[in-house]
Amino acid sequence: MEKLTREDCLRFDLDDPLAHFKNEFSLPEQMIYMSGNSLGAMPVRAIAKAHQTVAEEWGRGLVKSWNQHDWFHMTTRLGALIAPTIGADDDEVVMTDSTGINVFKVLSAALTLRPERCRILMEGSNFPTDNYTAQGLVKLLGADHEIVYAEGDEIAEKIDDSIAVVCLTQVHYKTGRVLNMHDLTAKAHAVGAVTIWDLCHSAGAMVVDLNGCNVDFAVGCTYKYYNGGPGSPAFIFAARRHHGKALQPLTGWYGHKSPFAFERDYTPAADIVQMLSGTQPILSMSVAEVGLEIMSRVNMAQIRAKSLRLGDVFIQLLQQECPDAGFELVSPSDDSRGSQIALSHPQGYAIVQALISCGVVGDFRAPNILRFGLTPLYLRYVDIWDAIAHIKDIMGTGRWQEPRFNQRHAVT
Amino acid sequence: MEKLTREDCLRFDLDDPLAHFKNEFSLPEQMIYMSGNSLGAMPVRAIAKAHQTVAEEWGRGLVKSWNQHDWFHMTTRLGALIAPTIGADDDEVVMTDSTGINVFKVLSAALTLRPERCRILMEGSNFPTDNYTAQGLVKLLGADHEIVYAEGDEIAEKIDDSIAVVCLTQVHYKTGRVLNMHDLTAKAHAVGAVTIWDLCHSAGAMVVDLNGCNVDFAVGCTYKYYNGGPGSPAFIFAARRHHGKALQPLTGWYGHKSPFAFERDYTPAADIVQMLSGTQPILSMSVAEVGLEIMSRVNMAQIRAKSLRLGDVFIQLLQQECPDAGFELVSPSDDSRGSQIALSHPQGYAIVQALISCGVVGDFRAPNILRFGLTPLYLRYVDIWDAIAHIKDIMGTGRWQEPRFNQRHAVT
Repeated sequence: MEKLTREDCLRFDLDDPLAHFKNEFSLPEQMIYMSGNSLGAMPVRAIAKAHQTVAEEWGRGLVKSWNQHDWFHMTTRLGALIAPTIGADDDEVVMTDSTGINVFKVLSAALTLRPERCRILMEGSNFPTDNYTAQGLVKLLGADHEIVYAEGDEIAEKIDDSIAVVCLTQVHYKTGRVLNMHDLTAKAHAVGAVTIWDLCHSAGAMVVDLNGCNVDFAVGCTYKYYNGGPGSPAFIFAARRHHGKALQPLTGWYGHKSPFAFERDYTPAADIVQMLSGTQPILSMSVAEVGLEIMSRVNMAQIRAKSLRLGDVFIQLLQQECPDAGFELVSPSDDSRGSQIALSHPQGYAIVQALISCGVVGDFRAPNILRFGLTPLYLRYVDIWDAIAHIKDIMGTGRWQEPRFNQRHAVT
Repeated sequence: MEKLTREDCLRFDLDDPLAHFKNEFSLPEQMIYMSGNSLGAMPVRAIAKAHQTVAEEWGRGLVKSWNQHDWFHMTTRLGALIAPTIGADDDEVVMTDSTGINVFKVLSAALTLRPERCRILMEGSNFPTDNYTAQGLVKLLGADHEIVYAEGDEIAEKIDDSIAVVCLTQVHYKTGRVLNMHDLTAKAHAVGAVTIWDLCHSAGAMVVDLNGCNVDFAVGCTYKYYNGGPGSPAFIFAARRHHGKALQPLTGWYGHKSPFAFERDYTPAADIVQMLSGTQPILSMSVAEVGLEIMSRVNMAQIRAKSLRLGDVFIQLLQQECPDAGFELVSPSDDSRGSQIALSHPQGYAIVQALISCGVVGDFRAPNILRFGLTPLYLRYVDIWDAIAHIKDIMGTGRWQEPRFNQRHAVT
């Protein structure tokens, strides 16, 4: 393969159909931000939106803003913004609560569709909040229920007619490996199981086609690739065929058919609204709308193409510039990779700290993984070049061995 | 009783030890805001705090702000701000999620303390989200569990040794009636029941002494009397004696003993942190801190004294100025009243709309209740006079009968 130069990367940027989106985000100068898979960057308009929501809508509109600014329907309005980016219809998605809470809801709802089965299939190594939540639900439901764990290629084998629900995260949070949503969903349906997909590390970063894959339920977060802001609420997808049938048990007033009737007894809304529970954090929701609106204008195939190419350039440059630095590629080298590069290195923690100190912000996951998020809306090819140049410099000079980078005092 | 004049009200304001707090809030000119029991007013500093959190902490600090601005411990740090205002210790309160979700958690946790009992005692007429949530939990747990409903004075009678959990809202959302937390908790404990108090309409508006009453669990919201902003997250109190013992089932990663160990299996935190589930909406939390900080400087006995007196002045002036307007007092006339005045009137909806149109913002609850929230931090005695003057004017001129006020087109 021919050597890549910085000029090549600049040329890739000139040809990038998504390049103009970078202007919609604000990042500190000199920072190469590769943690957008943890917390997305701030859209420029987020500052004005926050001011508008606080000073005008809250400060002047006060309680009247629930109607005048339609705070009340923000969950469904923002859900409809997310829907086309994940292959869902507008009325199949709501934005609400956290991913963990939402897993509890859809897992409970899914189990009601298979009352004669008690087993949930999950990937034990993936981001733990889904596993923890399933464990909490299983404990609450009692002894018959259990979780079956499987990893990667084992998953398909373990999908049999004893399984009630297959609950999987599409992209592995640590390695970036993509599971085949289409085939695994088809396999699950073939044996009568219901499917839940966690899109935290895929939605907004690749082509996700929930209805094309006939998925039953999904959850995902908006503070990574959707750039919704720190801890912005998560979302739930429920296929329309399950509306009014698969009900979730966190039956707060927002999921009621007529919340303002203030009736004593719960009557579920007949649509996606039943997935709601309580009053939502309006300020976080309102500011998140800026990032969601940007994403709604993006061609997801272009996002995916750029994401993969950014990763290919990263891998090629690392081999080219730092062949003997001791890094191993943990992520897949092909298109079964999500939107991040994971490397392993015995001194991963110190290296990540040294990189952060010179403006290359990735993160570390125990025991030895360096993660670099690839966010096509604001990351350029030349940024990849410059990041690798910093890695080369740090490894060549041994700067990462300075004591200040070796103290594991905090999580980054 | 001697007639009250506007000058009397102005004199009361001059003597009010809380009067200076009004300067910390921004309200539209000419508005008399009496819906602070629904959505509290905006503290002046909320605007700058929102800007700081978005532009600086998110925009410049990005993912590093989880440590640098300690977003990660916001749930416990803000919980510790709330704690002294409700008679709790700092390590017994966390701010998180919505009231409904939190009711699910503490109700589940409380039931684990009485595994041999299956009945939950609630007040059916109170704000429905607690009832709805309990219904969802009971359905999930299965046939043995049931809810026993009781109203007002019946509640004490129905507390017997068949009851696992007594789950009550201290101040009635519609009438403003206060339940006796001390006596009902003592009665529950005498028969071996566990207690949960919903403080949505009491915390921040009156003296609440959870530990003085030996309460087991409590929940409450921060967007009413704490002025945390629209939909700002709720809080949970768990008495220290239950930490590590009464566990809640929404076991997301934030409740794990070591969340950043990313272990497959859930190990609960041994303290109040187990009441957490998922990642929280940082922007809504951060802005809410402004209101919580204000409340932490307030003497709650002074809040309660002013709240009751504002109500007494309201009642006296309504009788004095509008004796024949057809209003009935629904709230208690004595100190068993919370921080609102509820009136009934056959044309309540139209009257509330007419009042809103002239700047007196109260709200309406079906079928015939007008609610006026009394928020001592920014409501003056002279505001009560002026509100009553508007009511007198509207009733005297019949302006509320204009057709536009008779259409029940929207919820206020």
